Amino acid sequence: MKVRAIENGTVIDHIPSKNLFKVISIIGLEKMDTTIFIGNNLDSKKLGKKGIIKITNKFPSIDDFNKIALLAPSAIFNIIRNYNVVEKHKVEIPKVVDGIVKCMNPQCITNHDKVKTYFTVFIKDGELNLKFKYCEKNTDERNIEVIK
Amino acid sequence: MKVRAIENGTVIDHIPSKNLFKVISIIGLEKMDTTIFIGNNLDSKKLGKKGIIKITNKFPSIDDFNKIALLAPSAIFNIIRNYNVVEKHKVEIPKVVDGIVKCMNPQCITNHDKVKTYFTVFIKDGELNLKFKYCEKNTDERNIEVIK
Repeated sequence: MKVRAIENGTVIDHIPSKNLFKVISIIGLEKMDTTIFIGNNLDSKKLGKKGIIKITNKFPSIDDFNKIALLAPSAIFNIIRNYNVVEKHKVEIPKVVDGIVKCMNPQCITNHDKVKTYFTVFIKDGELNLKFKYCEKNTDERNIEVIK
Repeated sequence: MKVRAIENGTVIDHIPSKNLFKVISIIGLEKMDTTIFIGNNLDSKKLGKKGIIKITNKFPSIDDFNKIALLAPSAIFNIIRNYNVVEKHKVEIPKVVDGIVKCMNPQCITNHDKVKTYFTVFIKDGELNLKFKYCEKNTDERNIEVIK
């Protein structure tokens, strides 16, 4: 039971099910005007349960890649032309996150003044964590909120 | 180009594309643990562009019906058993909306005290409008925000 093939566009596969709707929001799928297909809670050997997004006639930017990497480090991007996969990209976890994510500390200067956030990325207990440059608060995977 | 058939569950068809993600949020699709399929911006004779939601092994409550009716008055609910449509329901626009929608007036008592909202529904310029019981402000289709 799969979502059907598309002729031209992008397939984002192997998205952790729990983060699928966050990924949808980050790439702005709600505002896209071309045909899209989404599947969630599909069986996956790697992830247990996965989500998949198929976008017809659109192709992601490098910015989209970086934003998705934080919530779906397992994601694979497939570029489809004439029903064939012509490019395949594995998302890579970035070492630093520059201005994409909000600091979860409400007192942090970046939530009040026009100061860009800047995090270094580390893994703690198997989960992604962001260590912030300006304040002491770490932002964990569950609290990652992307600035649009 | 369609989303594939499901064995058992619910298919919500003929959702206006612009409101698909609001409907998703109202029925709590983000939190569902069974397999789901979503399609948007699909060609539709009736609507121009439509969205469709397929939920495996779940069946909507009357509450879900009422909530969706406001944003997708054209929606059809299909109950699927063993790949067959065994029930088909047309959503109907309710005459009154009791406690489901927020009042868009920030000064309204219902946004400060524990007072339930209550609207009567009317159509203005082809769009759904809600006339509120307590304050003078009408809530139009674009501003309908459902209380979860």
